[in-house]
Amino acid sequence: MRIDSTKERQYLENVFAKLGFTDEGGKLLADTLVDADLRGISSHGIQRLAWYQRMIKEGTIQPQNHAKIVRELPGTVLVDANQNMGQLAAVLGMKKIIEKAKKTGVAIAVIRNSNHFGTAGYYARLALKAGLVGIALTNTRPLVVPTNATQAFLGSNAFAFGFPASPHPFMFDGATCVVSGGKIQVHAKNGENLPGEWAVDKKRQVVSNAAQAEDILATAAFTEGEQKGGGVLTLGGKDEVNGNYKGMGNSIVIELLTGILAQGSISADTVKGNHDFSQFLMAFDPAFFGDPATLAADATEMFNRIRHLDHVPGRKIWIPGDREYRLLAENKTKGVLIDKKTYEEMQEIGQELGVDVPD
Amino acid sequence: MRIDSTKERQYLENVFAKLGFTDEGGKLLADTLVDADLRGISSHGIQRLAWYQRMIKEGTIQPQNHAKIVRELPGTVLVDANQNMGQLAAVLGMKKIIEKAKKTGVAIAVIRNSNHFGTAGYYARLALKAGLVGIALTNTRPLVVPTNATQAFLGSNAFAFGFPASPHPFMFDGATCVVSGGKIQVHAKNGENLPGEWAVDKKRQVVSNAAQAEDILATAAFTEGEQKGGGVLTLGGKDEVNGNYKGMGNSIVIELLTGILAQGSISADTVKGNHDFSQFLMAFDPAFFGDPATLAADATEMFNRIRHLDHVPGRKIWIPGDREYRLLAENKTKGVLIDKKTYEEMQEIGQELGVDVPD
Repeated sequence: MRIDSTKERQYLENVFAKLGFTDEGGKLLADTLVDADLRGISSHGIQRLAWYQRMIKEGTIQPQNHAKIVRELPGTVLVDANQNMGQLAAVLGMKKIIEKAKKTGVAIAVIRNSNHFGTAGYYARLALKAGLVGIALTNTRPLVVPTNATQAFLGSNAFAFGFPASPHPFMFDGATCVVSGGKIQVHAKNGENLPGEWAVDKKRQVVSNAAQAEDILATAAFTEGEQKGGGVLTLGGKDEVNGNYKGMGNSIVIELLTGILAQGSISADTVKGNHDFSQFLMAFDPAFFGDPATLAADATEMFNRIRHLDHVPGRKIWIPGDREYRLLAENKTKGVLIDKKTYEEMQEIGQELGVDVPD
Repeated sequence: MRIDSTKERQYLENVFAKLGFTDEGGKLLADTLVDADLRGISSHGIQRLAWYQRMIKEGTIQPQNHAKIVRELPGTVLVDANQNMGQLAAVLGMKKIIEKAKKTGVAIAVIRNSNHFGTAGYYARLALKAGLVGIALTNTRPLVVPTNATQAFLGSNAFAFGFPASPHPFMFDGATCVVSGGKIQVHAKNGENLPGEWAVDKKRQVVSNAAQAEDILATAAFTEGEQKGGGVLTLGGKDEVNGNYKGMGNSIVIELLTGILAQGSISADTVKGNHDFSQFLMAFDPAFFGDPATLAADATEMFNRIRHLDHVPGRKIWIPGDREYRLLAENKTKGVLIDKKTYEEMQEIGQELGVDVPD
């Protein structure tokens, strides 16, 4: 089913107000979820609401807390999310480094004591809107099995990178492993087999049954101390010979820039009840290096050349961002797609909090 | 055969002096090549010397030119390599941003009009020696085939990232595609088949004959205007279903940060005779985020936990840097490995320039 995004936004703002967030905080959270749904990234849209509510009830999220700047230099910021949602701290951090990067050319922020922050791309786009290049990273629950290992340890660790171009920016945004856990959940929900080398069991054998893979991930992501086995593969797949140690390297780089720099939990330790994710943000001013319009035109020309390379018949070459901006245009008119289970959750939450649910 | 690295260094310094580099420039170039050979990265060691000499003869490299700072802000530097070797400009740029990052917390440099700069890791290690975290990126010749395409367009685009740890730093350094072109050359030289999904032909069929793959790469990397087909795969392999669009995304990010930001050639256009590579460097001060000894200890503990995860029997889990630092210790004692062809080239160059060749 589809819901008009304006109605989705109103519903979310009402819910977040009832859940104890400030007006500003609630509006921002609603915006990040609506934005994800509009871009077709439904794994990070309103379907997360029930989980957010659960974390508030458990006390993992403190909706009235304010994120704060712990320390700053002309190019760096350390932000404490203060156990509230990651979105609130990440917007604070990104705004701060945008300001700094306009003076010094570049700035970075690390966020500690944080939580889920929606799509990483949201913050890279804040930098783009300010005329800058933006990068956002987060660690996650432990889902990913290092090269040759049979246990999950690394996060699916998202990486977003935005660069100005036409008709829309270059927008690379996603998990660093082969696929996100969300994509496996969708296959499980639809009773489909997994089509590629996505997940392995505790013997490092590829799992093609989506429900089995989902079980493996749920155990890896949420159980402490038990003997766990299997998980999602690093980019490069099952075998070392195809470079999966490079995928592992990329994942470890994000562990270092988030959990380690923030002195929070690494992904492997987010199962210990504290659920403290960490984030890393960066912005720099392309205008320092050349005329921004020229740089965007050069990037656009490169993308067009790639899109038109000789290719396998019947296949298309997509540039990161192409799908997302196409869906954004479509969903703004048609409304965002909501699955049945999520709509039921919206109804339950609406009833519990006395908030009208859009039809 | 093995050569004592002190003798290799002396030989290289003598050769570079005869080739017209300044004393300082020649010593630095020698150091980067010896350092690569010591770390077992022979593809970026003395075996590049004959190629460097050829580029000097062709006028592509101007050994007497000085790299210069074009422009700077408190956190950013634009460097012009002035058509000399990339090493000279990259050391200038990295030293400059180390200085800046110690004041502002973070700094980046972009290098234009550059050339081959050896291993990207060399510059990340300069940052590490100064107590900072270091990143270095370069574009390359066009070798890599985007998702669904049948032609090479992207560079093999190296990414190096160094982070303090014990007993040696985390050192991730390599091509962003499945394998470097150098690794395919080694298999061709040894008459071995390619063991994985490394390269494809113009129908995007995997090529297992190393000599055929080497031909494909040579054509892709050095021919302008002809109908070219095939090349190295992006990380993620042949099929879109295994996430090779993420590998493509990583490669494009480096194209944007190097050729586009530098307003030089993108990898695809380095075949047009100008051979101008571009580089991107970054350094930031981890001490801003926490006590450096604690951060290094936390990283070390994470690496040790990964090394000791349950794993496939008979297989080992390596952390990026483990192999390199093991070889460094070994080769310092035993000498660096030089293959027969490279030694012959060393003799020819020695004879031509009147430089003694080590036994």
